[in-house]
Amino acid sequence: MVVESATALARKDVVGISQLDAGEIQLILDTAEELLDVAKRPIKKVPTLRGSTVVNLFMEPSTRTRFSFEVAEKRLSADTLNFSASGSSVSKGETLFDTAQNLMAMAPDFIVIRHPNSGAPHRLAQEVPASIINAGDGINEHPTQALLDAFTMRQHFGSLEGLKVVVAGDIRHSRVARSNAFLLDKMGAEVRFVAPASLLPLEVEELGVSTFLRLEPALEDADVVMMLRIQLERQKRVNFPSMREYFDFFALTPERLKLAADRAVVLHPGPMNRGVEIDSLVADGSQSLILEQVTNGVAVRMAILYLLAGGPSEAASDS
Amino acid sequence: MVVESATALARKDVVGISQLDAGEIQLILDTAEELLDVAKRPIKKVPTLRGSTVVNLFMEPSTRTRFSFEVAEKRLSADTLNFSASGSSVSKGETLFDTAQNLMAMAPDFIVIRHPNSGAPHRLAQEVPASIINAGDGINEHPTQALLDAFTMRQHFGSLEGLKVVVAGDIRHSRVARSNAFLLDKMGAEVRFVAPASLLPLEVEELGVSTFLRLEPALEDADVVMMLRIQLERQKRVNFPSMREYFDFFALTPERLKLAADRAVVLHPGPMNRGVEIDSLVADGSQSLILEQVTNGVAVRMAILYLLAGGPSEAASDS
Amino acid sequence: MVVESATALARKDVVGISQLDAGEIQLILDTAEELLDVAKRPIKKVPTLRGSTVVNLFMEPSTRTRFSFEVAEKRLSADTLNFSASGSSVSKGETLFDTAQNLMAMAPDFIVIRHPNSGAPHRLAQEVPASIINAGDGINEHPTQALLDAFTMRQHFGSLEGLKVVVAGDIRHSRVARSNAFLLDKMGAEVRFVAPASLLPLEVEELGVSTFLRLEPALEDADVVMMLRIQLERQKRVNFPSMREYFDFFALTPERLKLAADRAVVLHPGPMNRGVEIDSLVADGSQSLILEQVTNGVAVRMAILYLLAGGPSEAASDS
Repeated sequence: MVVESATALARKDVVGISQLDAGEIQLILDTAEELLDVAKRPIKKVPTLRGSTVVNLFMEPSTRTRFSFEVAEKRLSADTLNFSASGSSVSKGETLFDTAQNLMAMAPDFIVIRHPNSGAPHRLAQEVPASIINAGDGINEHPTQALLDAFTMRQHFGSLEGLKVVVAGDIRHSRVARSNAFLLDKMGAEVRFVAPASLLPLEVEELGVSTFLRLEPALEDADVVMMLRIQLERQKRVNFPSMREYFDFFALTPERLKLAADRAVVLHPGPMNRGVEIDSLVADGSQSLILEQVTNGVAVRMAILYLLAGGPSEAASDS
Repeated sequence: MVVESATALARKDVVGISQLDAGEIQLILDTAEELLDVAKRPIKKVPTLRGSTVVNLFMEPSTRTRFSFEVAEKRLSADTLNFSASGSSVSKGETLFDTAQNLMAMAPDFIVIRHPNSGAPHRLAQEVPASIINAGDGINEHPTQALLDAFTMRQHFGSLEGLKVVVAGDIRHSRVARSNAFLLDKMGAEVRFVAPASLLPLEVEELGVSTFLRLEPALEDADVVMMLRIQLERQKRVNFPSMREYFDFFALTPERLKLAADRAVVLHPGPMNRGVEIDSLVADGSQSLILEQVTNGVAVRMAILYLLAGGPSEAASDS
Repeated sequence: MVVESATALARKDVVGISQLDAGEIQLILDTAEELLDVAKRPIKKVPTLRGSTVVNLFMEPSTRTRFSFEVAEKRLSADTLNFSASGSSVSKGETLFDTAQNLMAMAPDFIVIRHPNSGAPHRLAQEVPASIINAGDGINEHPTQALLDAFTMRQHFGSLEGLKVVVAGDIRHSRVARSNAFLLDKMGAEVRFVAPASLLPLEVEELGVSTFLRLEPALEDADVVMMLRIQLERQKRVNFPSMREYFDFFALTPERLKLAADRAVVLHPGPMNRGVEIDSLVADGSQSLILEQVTNGVAVRMAILYLLAGGPSEAASDS
């Protein structure tokens, strides 16, 4: 499989990996590689988005994603406006539609949105002329996370093609797992989902992944092991046993990691529950690329903003 | 009535419409018209307030007003600092006076203040050298809202003089209604207040308005219908019937809107309670200028900041 | 005692007064004096930190300290990112270590940290390459407050040497008192702690101060009277009598202030509890330098940022 980079991101929005083709994904990763150096300069700023306004509309709590976007926006010299659910007109009963219409009337160029409802960024993208970037919607997608994961894998291995990638944890409630599955499939990697049966997704087949109920067999020959966060706050009912039992059966320990390929690397989208889904010896070990992920996240988000800012004249909204 | 624009806003503060004369109001509206274009440029920024510091001191929750001010400030290149009630020294028992003195010691050029107590911006303006802009104080005034409403009417009709303006809803608790009454009276428009008796203000006569207990008769020949938000959070006791009854008697429906002049337009300061005080068909209909209000709000706030920044050398504080 | 200014702040971090020597303290105060003028210019900005990123990591509520830092950062043209405890990944159970590692992966140049645990900034400084500035840690230190207090005293008296400084209030729980004791001792001033026995610290001797159980005898010949805030929120048990009794015995009233030297001045780190630890006649009186403290706080924080930015090439982390 040879993927050719697209020459431009000919779209208004980035609401999901499912809408992107392999060439566009490659273009984003290539652009992020160029932008990675900005963080190493004494003056960590480029004037690309000077005079542009980015609204960070976070309707769910978030630290690292919001922060990463805000750093990316400021490195591109954009003006940023942070809007969060608490203390806002949303608590006065306003609809997302009205909130968005009102934001648009202030003419922002970009809206970065995190929302508890799957599909909210997609609907917003159809309603407003601003470029919408999905920062996580319900249990649907988290495209910038999958892109930074892919960037980190490609940075380490040179290419995504043929990589064996294990994704383990609460897959059913994970937009990270879904976006990764879409992306890795498009880029020619092999994806293995690992979870207790109650935490596997219902639509495994359409995602093109293989599934495992235990970590050990999935790890065989694996190049990448991505441990997901146990998201207690996202689960209405308790679908899995105690934290201790979870650790015993599903946590990535140094012993289990030895079952993977020698060259295997470890990823985690964070925030980590140390001692629950991941052992600290692994999180802080030599095979961990967890902090590289965070660094790369800023570059990937800069790349998306940069490409969307450069491309809108040729773009038709197809999100 | 011929209103001549003032040549400068020769004052330190904008704390209420009641202190402004018609020429000053006209000057603000004229200036806002010129600044409206900044939002349409590729680089939506002018250097007017570069190096100036604006503190947004919001002691009540707000999204759209705070946001609108912040956008206005950033378009003028000011540095902005957001201060809200929660998690602040106010919760440690500090007085407004001490908070303000402390803010002043950091030498901000402007303080935009929203406060639950009527008169707080006025007192602050007397105590500190910074320019104070009232972003809503208790049930007293919300001058920038009235100015953006006036701007929107003038933009549509060319002039405010002689316009018949219906303001309907919870008038008694509405600083928006009060500021609008002051402004429209000064500019030669006719104001009709509509509310259930329990929600009419006590001092109707001094405001120079006529009052109605039902919407239908007030709508006759009306050029502008401004529906206020039912502010449940501002009412200690329930002064009106159920939401459903409210809708049946006072909501602006397409049928009721037909009773107004053919050329009538609809305003709402937001956030809207769709299905309570306004029908979605009206809110989203062709006569609605609700989103124009939001766009105009940024321009009006830019104009006030711009005029206060340019005028202080000639100004004497008379707020 | 003749203190010679250091020629550079040859360190990565400022986590406590206890690590600074007299020459370094003098350098910070001298630099702050030069930077004080920036606030008086029409354009209150210098380009020193353009393109640098400062993270304000506040794990305890704060208004004035965070604000003061943010103003200082913006006057130096830095990009600022505010991170507070609520709504963050910290509430998802992340450790300080992981939070810090993640922040570092975004390559900030400075982290200003306030944390409820004594020693947290020190540990952070050892873990990350960014410059750490302690904005208050538990009951340990609040170095920038002590520096601004010292700046204010020096500004008024010309020198700190030989000054008799009374620090009164809840000394045991006060990081302000501790940092002041360290600093004043190093600079040749005499420190007198005043508190009810239950609020005196346990390790008084190592601080090199004298202690008093009543205010009156401590005030004799005093040049500076620093009243601390009664920090109800920091006390698990009630260690002192009622507010009224506290006022009767320990508050600084005009009568008590007369017991100090004629030239005595009054300081308070804020926020004040008027009528508890300080009488309004004193707080607002001619001997009060309380607002000068706030103004000077911005200059002192600018000085620290400026010196840390200029010195890191020669610095070895010794914090």
